[in-house]
Amino acid sequence: MSGCCSSEPANALRAEFLKARIYDQVRCDLERIERALQRHLSSSVPLIEVVGRYIVNSGGKRLRPLLMILSARLCGYQGDQEVDLAVAFELLHAATLLHDDVVDNAEIRRKNPAANTIWGNPAVVLIGDYLYSQAIRTTVCYKDLRILEVFSATTSRIAEGEVLQLIHSDDLETDEAAYMEVITRKTADLMTAACQIGAIFAGAGPQEESALRDYGHHLGIAFQLTDDALDYVGSVGELGKPVGNDIQEGKATLPLIHALGRAEDGQRDLIRSAFLSEAPLEREQIEVIQKLVLDLGGVDYTFQKAAHHLDRARSNLGIFPESPAKSTLLDLADYVLCRRS
Amino acid sequence: MSGCCSSEPANALRAEFLKARIYDQVRCDLERIERALQRHLSSSVPLIEVVGRYIVNSGGKRLRPLLMILSARLCGYQGDQEVDLAVAFELLHAATLLHDDVVDNAEIRRKNPAANTIWGNPAVVLIGDYLYSQAIRTTVCYKDLRILEVFSATTSRIAEGEVLQLIHSDDLETDEAAYMEVITRKTADLMTAACQIGAIFAGAGPQEESALRDYGHHLGIAFQLTDDALDYVGSVGELGKPVGNDIQEGKATLPLIHALGRAEDGQRDLIRSAFLSEAPLEREQIEVIQKLVLDLGGVDYTFQKAAHHLDRARSNLGIFPESPAKSTLLDLADYVLCRRS
Repeated sequence: MSGCCSSEPANALRAEFLKARIYDQVRCDLERIERALQRHLSSSVPLIEVVGRYIVNSGGKRLRPLLMILSARLCGYQGDQEVDLAVAFELLHAATLLHDDVVDNAEIRRKNPAANTIWGNPAVVLIGDYLYSQAIRTTVCYKDLRILEVFSATTSRIAEGEVLQLIHSDDLETDEAAYMEVITRKTADLMTAACQIGAIFAGAGPQEESALRDYGHHLGIAFQLTDDALDYVGSVGELGKPVGNDIQEGKATLPLIHALGRAEDGQRDLIRSAFLSEAPLEREQIEVIQKLVLDLGGVDYTFQKAAHHLDRARSNLGIFPESPAKSTLLDLADYVLCRRS
Repeated sequence: MSGCCSSEPANALRAEFLKARIYDQVRCDLERIERALQRHLSSSVPLIEVVGRYIVNSGGKRLRPLLMILSARLCGYQGDQEVDLAVAFELLHAATLLHDDVVDNAEIRRKNPAANTIWGNPAVVLIGDYLYSQAIRTTVCYKDLRILEVFSATTSRIAEGEVLQLIHSDDLETDEAAYMEVITRKTADLMTAACQIGAIFAGAGPQEESALRDYGHHLGIAFQLTDDALDYVGSVGELGKPVGNDIQEGKATLPLIHALGRAEDGQRDLIRSAFLSEAPLEREQIEVIQKLVLDLGGVDYTFQKAAHHLDRARSNLGIFPESPAKSTLLDLADYVLCRRS
């Protein structure tokens, strides 16, 4: 395995170090994002405020708004008018989380009860719609048609990605190409858009815009790959949701897809019967599959692929001169692979 | 009762006559709308196309796109570039229908099985999101910031209205003001926006824009009032969904709210126990409540209120010179009160 993930303890230390350095750089921005977020969640309908605050306050790291702000700054923007636009990405993200919880019938989200288990599916569907509309409305306020084109095209692609993921659920025939298509749309595209829109907002040229778009794309892919790998090796405490969640929910992610391709018949049957089980899996069954996927190299392969995408993300920043924003975007790329939560 | 609803047979005949006259005027536009709609439903994900076509082909009358087209024409627009913008209203409407079906756990929509009973809630939630995003994307293509402002503000208000309706479900304390707030947002606002955006698209002045906005608002209110009255007096064949649906689902609409206000204690108890019943109501129970609401004047009151709003809708068209578009918009206002489907 490449990069910072070669040794567990060294890796954990490096993650802590990177996290601290990133937080030092973005503390002010995070506070601005929080204030703007709370403002955008206000509604004349109290239930919307309650559920909206619950989902956005449930431990999100504000990665998408930060990407937008840092991208704008990397392209020379020095003002403070970008924060509402940045928040639109978090609102959209929160809307997709609410709908995801309904779709997955989730019980836990980031260590807390999923919103639908508290307020029921109807409220969560409709409040997701509200957050989605607020994201669009906020973006419209910036009166920039190119930003609106990128943002609205992204929302369509995300929705298509979510449907694609649903189609592939419980489908062990999902191959790596189909998996990559799903994670590109459902995860990477929003980070791509955040970085690209940061550039557009700052009035960057086409080369800078394209470089930041590609940075966001590869970072987003690596982010999801790491997430999916951690589902096979992380712990509940680290991830804020049960590990082995994907196999429990019938989601064929890259670690499993790769392992299946290298499995012998007996191993394949074992994986298949766990994956397709109607009954909830026992803890021990999940651990057997996790070990198998690990032994067959599915987790290593996924981390390696993530490392490769992070190399590409970093290389896209090469055209920009050194700056605090650039350092932080580079740190974020490093952190994606080391993180355990 | 005022206007065309004074006698049942005369009313039915007049409805048929108006419908035929309206169709004569808009046949070409309806064909253009259909072609554009099918184009906008294309997706690289086949399931999206299937469910999208199912919901938009399930018997909608394309009232919202027609309102936009007729409003533009009333303000002097003579081109053919408005149809995609018109279709955005139908896409948004279809998205809300899909999410409504999930929220209401509906089994029937316009005489057909509701989409969620065929494809399940997860697919219907996500494909609703896709249609919603396509509506926004289509509107963005017109590169008109005022149109985008009105459209996106409307989507927020609709979402708030849907949440408000959910909050008031199973709530017999809902009063007329709360009810009016819900129907303004969940139904009237989209028609208001269709008419207003038609005016903006045509480059109309502020007076025309304001008149069309008010026309759409009052038409939309009257449309929902009539719908809610028909739920107490229509037949399954006419409405395409079970009558008595609202009381079955615990929706306190105006006929019931008004009747409750005039009911004696025994009658109120009867209504309350039916309304709050956990078990599905028998046909006979529904008929008892329907008769009670009718006898207490709830249906008449609701139709009268609709007639009043239609008068206001029509009066807003007074500033426009005579034209085929104006005649059709006036016919539509007449038709709303006579329609039985």
